[in-house]
Amino acid sequence: MPDQNLNCPLPLQYDQIVMAHGGGGRLMQQLLNDIIQPVFNNPILNQKHDSAVFTINNAQLAFTTDSYVVKPLFFSGGDIGKLAVCGTLNDLAMSGAKPLYLSCSLIIEEGFPITDLQRIVASMQEIAKQADVLIVTGDTKVVDHGSGDGVYINTAGIGLLSGSTHSAPANIQVGDSIIINSDIARHGMAIMLEREGMRFDNNISSDCADLSGLVQALIQAEITLHCMRDLTRGGLASGLIELASASGHHIEINETAVPIRPDVNSACEILGFDPLYIANEGCFALFVPEDKTEQALAVMHEHALGQQACLIGSVKSVHPKGIVTLQTAMGISRVLDLLSGEQLPRIC
Amino acid sequence: MPDQNLNCPLPLQYDQIVMAHGGGGRLMQQLLNDIIQPVFNNPILNQKHDSAVFTINNAQLAFTTDSYVVKPLFFSGGDIGKLAVCGTLNDLAMSGAKPLYLSCSLIIEEGFPITDLQRIVASMQEIAKQADVLIVTGDTKVVDHGSGDGVYINTAGIGLLSGSTHSAPANIQVGDSIIINSDIARHGMAIMLEREGMRFDNNISSDCADLSGLVQALIQAEITLHCMRDLTRGGLASGLIELASASGHHIEINETAVPIRPDVNSACEILGFDPLYIANEGCFALFVPEDKTEQALAVMHEHALGQQACLIGSVKSVHPKGIVTLQTAMGISRVLDLLSGEQLPRIC
Repeated sequence: MPDQNLNCPLPLQYDQIVMAHGGGGRLMQQLLNDIIQPVFNNPILNQKHDSAVFTINNAQLAFTTDSYVVKPLFFSGGDIGKLAVCGTLNDLAMSGAKPLYLSCSLIIEEGFPITDLQRIVASMQEIAKQADVLIVTGDTKVVDHGSGDGVYINTAGIGLLSGSTHSAPANIQVGDSIIINSDIARHGMAIMLEREGMRFDNNISSDCADLSGLVQALIQAEITLHCMRDLTRGGLASGLIELASASGHHIEINETAVPIRPDVNSACEILGFDPLYIANEGCFALFVPEDKTEQALAVMHEHALGQQACLIGSVKSVHPKGIVTLQTAMGISRVLDLLSGEQLPRIC
Repeated sequence: MPDQNLNCPLPLQYDQIVMAHGGGGRLMQQLLNDIIQPVFNNPILNQKHDSAVFTINNAQLAFTTDSYVVKPLFFSGGDIGKLAVCGTLNDLAMSGAKPLYLSCSLIIEEGFPITDLQRIVASMQEIAKQADVLIVTGDTKVVDHGSGDGVYINTAGIGLLSGSTHSAPANIQVGDSIIINSDIARHGMAIMLEREGMRFDNNISSDCADLSGLVQALIQAEITLHCMRDLTRGGLASGLIELASASGHHIEINETAVPIRPDVNSACEILGFDPLYIANEGCFALFVPEDKTEQALAVMHEHALGQQACLIGSVKSVHPKGIVTLQTAMGISRVLDLLSGEQLPRIC
């Protein structure tokens, strides 16, 4: 697979883990590509998708995992429990799977208030119930005071794919339309403002949401879904750069087409963040054949989480391959690159 | 289900998490039974087995998860990576499933040496390869220096059950023989000695091992497996107490029949630990119909991890139900109870 976009002109060598190794940018890709992937190396892992997809007997299944270390644990629009369930549901949904079963593993710091734990567990169950999935297995560990940060949560999930849908980076084709379902950068900015104790006139809440219902609506409408990617750590830009790299195609997006709330944009400007790189937790990019664009948008507009769905770009045949270019409001084309450092640590 | 054994005569009320909430004893059971289980409540979770078992299409699957926070990360006989893979393989095996796919989620502390990470990842892959399972999906998070303890690992796993085998606490029957495959208490004492910087003449190594091959050998020999339980946190005693409580039966074991190495026993005596409550990571209890005892032992003796397999007790019809009694070397019968406090924190 072409990988030029993830190669750094100067090697970034670290002998210790730094925060950016978890940030969704270049260093995280290096850690995965250089240290982890070559060791576990197998065709399913190497699909580099949000979920692993395999068949057991006649069931085509998706399997995924994520640990959540968000700080603070409670924030406007959600908490670590909601995030942990939505995040894993979304990773399953991105492969086209209907989520069925989740696990819940807690690493709790000594001294953590049990009432907070109850709030978090209730929050997990609320989303699971809405999504009609069961939390069927779990684990609880306790670490010494000072060796954790309240609670870390891991959720793993299993989903079932329907025979016809196979969303994967390798299926992205030249000419595909790229649609996103909502405005960007709300989750990251909600966390950041919470952490900094800042308040805007309009409260900025996380977009944290379960996207699996919206994806199932697209599947039921029999829309060809070439690829889907939820735009979490590293935001819209990093998600698309990974897909351009994995598919070997050139992705072009239009800056003016990407929806962002004015207050979120202002918060990004004040704090010096590029909203294209800010994490979302209820926003995904969808690659569909060009002639399915209107139909996909129509289905999405009918769903609560897709009312702002819009076309933001397309897959081009032009060289160089494996990159993402942004057509700016000024009419200039610039290449988007993975961030080397850490913009917003502990966002999910 | 009768639960008298897990009820405390005096309620233990905590408003904060304490180390013993993760210790495998009474407080952990209370946390699970009072705070977590009632919220997630569903029939699959309520099986209270090492793995959740469910059917998707025609595939009967087992699904499990565990997070590992062992301290130190490297110890005689293993490391956190080996533990994380063996532990999840074993949880799948205990349901009678053949493990197929694992996930690996890392929470790494800022400043953690990359060479240590490489050792751990290599260790995970070594066991996975031996067990013929694939690590197919993963996640990496980084937490600030001081908010972790090097690395925490979560593994979740999926296994496939054959149609005939269904190992579960509810299948335990009066008259069943209880067999264990090896001597006890090595893992916990290896960790403890490592932590205390103590050395015995004979190095005490963890028994950390993948039990799935041994279990598959029992299944292939078509031995009726009523229930299996790996004897991790809380050791042999806690594992059997949970099974007695879940099944509503009276379990009796003979102290003199339980194998323990003299050096491990000495280490326990010196440090004041009861070996019956010390964690194992390659030891399990097997419940089989009495007339299958010899056949089961013969199969186990053929396997490297079952050479010491022996009968340690049986399921009795006598009252009171739901408890475990120990016939001591002195000929006295005493009731084994869950520990209220924390004997050995951060053991896995």
